[in-house]
Amino acid sequence: MTTIAKGANVVTLINVFTVAPDNQYKLATLLIEATERTMRHLPGFVSANIHQSFDGTKVINYAQWKTREDFQAMQQNPQAKPHLQAAAALASFEPILCEVVDAISTTE
Amino acid sequence: MTTIAKGANVVTLINVFTVAPDNQYKLATLLIEATERTMRHLPGFVSANIHQSFDGTKVINYAQWKTREDFQAMQQNPQAKPHLQAAAALASFEPILCEVVDAISTTE
Repeated sequence: MTTIAKGANVVTLINVFTVAPDNQYKLATLLIEATERTMRHLPGFVSANIHQSFDGTKVINYAQWKTREDFQAMQQNPQAKPHLQAAAALASFEPILCEVVDAISTTE
Repeated sequence: MTTIAKGANVVTLINVFTVAPDNQYKLATLLIEATERTMRHLPGFVSANIHQSFDGTKVINYAQWKTREDFQAMQQNPQAKPHLQAAAALASFEPILCEVVDAISTTE
């Protein structure tokens, strides 16, 4: 289970992929396999949370890494690159590196 | 604290706002106040999680509602509309309604 909290010691990467609806399931599966095989074993990995939009045109990865440097090291990692390239062949994407400024929930 | 899990009984709204860096803090504050004053009291609200990008150009709301109908009812709610209009005056935005297809974390 993934948690979102203010002041947690993570950086958040929100990556919005725009995809042809015929490729949505394929891209989501690719991201899940990339996470299971490679990303989760890299230093600083905290979580990856793969979402599919109901309209078929987006896949979103809400990911957490311990530090910005861990995320940047993953981008240069030779084991990660083929996964990143396979995703780029299926979709355009816009990675946003960010921090939580507030988390308001009914369970707090 | 907010949780992300596969099979959780929520719909997820990921809303990416693009903003002038001078307005990033103002928009984040506006979204937090809208959540505290109005959104959290509406039927079906589960969570709102406000993020700021490190580059200054984005504010992202990762929100959860119990059902799609609850989310749609909020969009039509007269108490919510002024908040939505105030956000629209500061930024362009792209709301994506989606579901979690996998949540992979080091704590599972």
